[in-house]
Order: sequence, then structure tokens, then C-alpha cells
Amino acid sequence: MSKPKVFEKPAGVKDYLPEAVSKLRRIEKSVLDCMRRWGYEQIVTPTLEYYDTVGIASSTSDRKLFKLLDRNGTTLVMRSDMTAPIARVVASLLKEQPLPIRLSYHASVFRAMEDEAGREAEFYQTGVELVGDGSADADAEVVALAIASLQAAGVEEFKIALGHVGFLHGLLNETLKDRPDAQTALKECLLGRDYVGYRKTLGDLGLGISVRRELEEVLRLHGGEEIFAHARRLSRDPLAQASIAHLREVWEVLQAYGVSGHVLIDLTMIGDFSYYTGMTFEGYAADHGFPVCSGGRYDNLLTQFGRPAPATGFALKTNRILELIPSGRTEKPGSVLLVYKTNRRKEALAKAAELRSADGASVETRRVPENTKPGEPALTSGEYAEVIEFF
Amino acid sequence: MSKPKVFEKPAGVKDYLPEAVSKLRRIEKSVLDCMRRWGYEQIVTPTLEYYDTVGIASSTSDRKLFKLLDRNGTTLVMRSDMTAPIARVVASLLKEQPLPIRLSYHASVFRAMEDEAGREAEFYQTGVELVGDGSADADAEVVALAIASLQAAGVEEFKIALGHVGFLHGLLNETLKDRPDAQTALKECLLGRDYVGYRKTLGDLGLGISVRRELEEVLRLHGGEEIFAHARRLSRDPLAQASIAHLREVWEVLQAYGVSGHVLIDLTMIGDFSYYTGMTFEGYAADHGFPVCSGGRYDNLLTQFGRPAPATGFALKTNRILELIPSGRTEKPGSVLLVYKTNRRKEALAKAAELRSADGASVETRRVPENTKPGEPALTSGEYAEVIEFF
Repeated sequence: MSKPKVFEKPAGVKDYLPEAVSKLRRIEKSVLDCMRRWGYEQIVTPTLEYYDTVGIASSTSDRKLFKLLDRNGTTLVMRSDMTAPIARVVASLLKEQPLPIRLSYHASVFRAMEDEAGREAEFYQTGVELVGDGSADADAEVVALAIASLQAAGVEEFKIALGHVGFLHGLLNETLKDRPDAQTALKECLLGRDYVGYRKTLGDLGLGISVRRELEEVLRLHGGEEIFAHARRLSRDPLAQASIAHLREVWEVLQAYGVSGHVLIDLTMIGDFSYYTGMTFEGYAADHGFPVCSGGRYDNLLTQFGRPAPATGFALKTNRILELIPSGRTEKPGSVLLVYKTNRRKEALAKAAELRSADGASVETRRVPENTKPGEPALTSGEYAEVIEFF
Repeated sequence: MSKPKVFEKPAGVKDYLPEAVSKLRRIEKSVLDCMRRWGYEQIVTPTLEYYDTVGIASSTSDRKLFKLLDRNGTTLVMRSDMTAPIARVVASLLKEQPLPIRLSYHASVFRAMEDEAGREAEFYQTGVELVGDGSADADAEVVALAIASLQAAGVEEFKIALGHVGFLHGLLNETLKDRPDAQTALKECLLGRDYVGYRKTLGDLGLGISVRRELEEVLRLHGGEEIFAHARRLSRDPLAQASIAHLREVWEVLQAYGVSGHVLIDLTMIGDFSYYTGMTFEGYAADHGFPVCSGGRYDNLLTQFGRPAPATGFALKTNRILELIPSGRTEKPGSVLLVYKTNRRKEALAKAAELRSADGASVETRRVPENTKPGEPALTSGEYAEVIEFF
């Protein structure tokens, strides 16, 4: 445990220099404005929350929460997502506001580092929650808004993978009713997108050949709308059937929105299966391995805050989008430098004020030594579109 | 140490509902745009920093820092201001960029609560740092920009109190050379604006009558530019004299900016005297007891990060400004609600898309049960400028 060097910062956190900030701000503004046009109003919640309420309710595993103690010895967490804080607000400050409630946010969230290289400990999420509407229309609305938000952010090519945790819950309950551990092991494999591990786990369970084939067939349940019929044939379990019927309706609404061309059905994708209760989705940009957005339905969360209500939502992974899109920095108008000596100071400062207010130019002013000669290059280190001398 | 209720949040932190967020965003945008026009580019730094570097270098007292441990046992802090993190960036990522460097920020900062009621543990600061220019012109620039920023934020009536820590350092060194404890005690009184305590401390020191009168006279050193002559007569100490000469030049530049009407000279105001090294200032809005901005020169900080350079800057106390200015929410255009049944879903969603893109309206959509009758009020709980039914 050596002392950090003066210029170091903690692992997994970033500085954003002006060029990156300008891009980040542009994404933030475009996406929040898009969300506003869909009826979502922005909310800001604190960075610190109680561990026993929001910390426990969040979908982040306990070991990934940044924890600290307040003066009274109560454990606090740095928020790890915005969904649980928003549930708290909907159930408290907004408890008189009728449902459905539509809220948006842009915020940094925190996850304590695993020892994985390159994982971020602080990153931005820009997202929405739609609380109080359990319909397929509400699920489709957040998927369609995720698509509109990615477009607003400047992501041009992407696909949304759409699934439903209920299908797999139903299928596994039907086929492995008395083996909850096996169910969890298989779900963990799918959560980690580990198809090899899934097949191996299946092989180790000593199942009958037909059940094993049925469960292997799950890995093929991704593609176009033909997957609905395929999945329906695979399981007769009522939960599995109801989940497919709901997802099919979400698909129909997405067709009505005219955005189903962006969407693939993927029943192997279950997201965080202890948290989501229905439809789940992830967005992938072309040539980019990690998801750029994720979301789904979480109908149990609001109950934990004392205002039971269905809810659905998503978050853009804003930092990943920042890496994807071009900088656009070239748009920036060059700045002007006014250099002056004391005797013409007032004139120079008045000119600066005029340029700033007239055309919104970026204008720097600098007093130079009295013996400075016109055009001396040392004055103008840095890049300026124009240098005006007042002496 | 009882468990928090589900709807509670930690002491000293806030939720901002949409109306407050919209005001906060307006202030943020106007002020950052004003700063950009003065040549300041925005930077974002992490919420977490190392205690041993940025934590120690910050002007926040140790007991007010939020501390936590990372996985390696190194102490982290939640940033308590933006000045120290920016010094770190100027000395590392920007070390090749020639001085002067102008940077702006809008960020939340954190101070562990004292037991004082109503103190905030997380609040916003919007500010600038001007690194690499030690002139009176640079000091005046940040004061003039603070004035322009308050105006951009919508604060109409305010005064800036302008002082210089060097004057008091010099005067006390001259009069109480061998009594550093007495010097500190008197400075602490002024820092806390405790004039009664200052007089009492003076009385307890057993000083000669002339020295005591001289030190009591300090309390009268606030007013217009006549204060410069008054102060110059009071102390012959070279540091005190040089400080007044510098402050007088800052004043002249502020006259050249045409903003000296907003400024009062106040040599009893010393800010954090272990941190600031020269000019300091605070802004007060009419009828508001707490400062709405504060700043000053800190020429020793950058040395701690290995790139010695003079520096000056300020931060608006954005939360206090949020309380001061009117909401302006009335400008918000009402939103539109489109209600539909399944058979006209596609038509309704197309209309929503059209309204959203044509005039940037906020449009919500909602599917209603098939047996809903036109004009049923239950559909439209909430406030909408217009409700359009598709059934």
C-alpha cells in the first residue's frame, strides 16, 4: 500500500478534457431532449444513498457497491444505478402524483472495481423509467425510445436484442422442477453468455435425452419473429407461454412504431434474472462488443419502497457511446486573443465584451509587458483564430 | 443506529424534481456558455480522488472530507472542490499545454456534515480556474467573470466584497511578530466574521494602547476605494503595502471592465487564509445572508502537483442561486396525450412521432382498455395541454 503519486487518480475513474466534455455534453443534450419529447421529465438524485434501502434494492451485487459510513455509523452507498433511487422518489416525494410517471436522468454511477482490467468504477448513464404501466405498449415504448435515443446520440448502426426472463424461468421450472441449483447454474451460464459452459452444465446433470435436447434447443432461440413459434413449441409451461405471448405483442407494437427492423429476438439473453421480471433488452452497436444500452421490466422493485407498481425502463451506457461517435470538434469556432498594454486596457476590454455578446465568440484577453513589440510570437502561444493587438 | 426507513435519504443530500432540474439546467447552461465566451473550456474530473494527493491539497478541513478505502487499502475522498482536481490535471494530462490555461466546470462536491442544521453534504459548484497568470489583470478577469456569471444565472442584485489576505498577514506580522498564536486567533475571528470575538481577543492580549487601536481599526476597513488610502496609512509593513498596491490595480482593471459599481473593498474578509495567497472575494445577493460565490488567488497549490504556477479562480454556489431565482416554469409548453385502442395503435404512434419531430412537443401515448368510452376522464389523470383520442 504505497502512497499514490501526486498526478495519479484512483483506478477506473477518468478525466474528461474539453474535447471529450464537449462531445459528452452534446450526447447528453440530444438524448435528454429526445426523452423530453416522449414525455419524460428529468430528475436528479443524490450521489449518496442508504445501503439498507437503495443499496439493497439496486441490481448491483453487494461486493460491487462503494460503501462508507456516515457520522452516525449508518452505511451509505454511492449510487450504482438510477433505477432504485427513482423508485424511492416515486414512492416518497412523488407519492401523490398519479401513475403512469415518466422520468429521465443523466448521471454518473459507481461500481467498485473487480480485478478486471479496464472496468470503469465511475461512468455515465442516460436513461428513463416508466412507472405504473404493465402493458406490452409500455415495454415497446421504452424499447422504441431506446432506439430513438441511440439515434439522437449519433449511433448509426445498432441492433436491439429483445428477450423475456419469464420464458426461461417457465421452461426450467417445467424441466428441472426439483433441481433449483441446476436452474441457477444454467441461468448463470446464459447471463455470462457462456454457451460452452451451458452445454457442459447440461451434460453434467445426467438428464434424459429428450429433456437435454429441449434445453440445448434454448441456445438456438435467437433470430427474427420465427423465434416466437419455435419457443412456443419448445415449452408448454404456462409462464413460458404467457411470456412469449407478451413478447410477441411487444414486437407488434414495435412494428407499429416502425422500428422492428432494429430488433432481434433473443431468448438466451436474460439480463439480471433476479431483478428483471419480464421483457429485457440490450443494444449493440456495429463492431462493438459491449452493449451500448440495456433495460427491461422490473415489476417487484416499487413494492420494496411501499408503492407497488409495474415499471419498465432502460439506460444508455453513455461512456461507450462517447467512444463510438466521432468528435465533431471541427465545428468549434476558433477563439480570439486580445493583447493589450495598460494604456489601452479599457479599449481592449470593451472590444472583448462587444465580441462576446455580439456573436458569442470565445475571447481571451491578456496584458503584455510594456516593452512588448507588435507581432511578438511569444505572446500568442496557443491556437487562436485571430490575435488583435492593442498597443 | 436504527435502520433507515425505505423512503429516507442521507442527511444533507437532495432530490431535485423536474421543475428544479429545469431551473438548475438553465443556470448551468447560461453560466457555462458565459464562461466559454471568456475563453474557459469545460473539464470533468472523477468524483473519487486519492486522499494523499487531491484530498490533502484541497482547502477543505480534514474532518469534512468523505473518506473511503479502495480494494488496496488506499484512502479515497469524494471531491470537496474542483480546484485541487483541476490542479492535478493541469500538472499531468495538460502538462504540455502552454500557460495560461483557462478551465471551467459544473460539478457536485461533497462535505461531510457537521452537526449544523441545514448544511448540505452534496452541492453544485459552477466555476473557473485561470492558471499561469499572476497579474492584477488576471485577478480582475475572474472577478469580472464572476459578475458576468451571476448575471447570466439570473441574479439581479448583488455585491462583490473584495479583499487581500496579504494585507492582514503583513499587518499582524508587524504588530504581533512574536505571537503567532495571537495572529491565528485574530484571523480565525475574521474568518468567522466574528467582530465581537476579534475585539475580545484583542482585549485579552495585553497590548499597548496604540497597537490595540491599530488592530481595532482593521474592522473599519470595508467600503469604497477610500479604503486603499486608509489601509496604507494603517500599516507600513512591505507585504501589507504591496498587497494594497496590487488590490488597487485589480480595482483599476475592474473600473476598465466597467463593473466596479458591483464591488466593495473589504480587508476584513480573508477567506481561507491558509489556502489563498492574494486577492480573495465573495459575492452576496440582496437579502441573502450566505455568499453566492467565492474565489481568490492560490499561488502555492500547483507546486504541490509538480507544476509551479500562479492561479486564480472562483466558484458560484449554484444551489444557493437556485433558491434565489424565480422558476420560469411557466414557459414550459404543455404536453400532449394521445390515447388509443389497439386497432388504431399504428395511427396514434405515427401521429406522436410527427408531433415530436415537427414542433418538439412533449407527447405521451397510452393504450386504453377496449371498452373505454370517448372523453372518459379517468384516462387523463395528470395535466395535459391537449388530449387526442384514437378510438
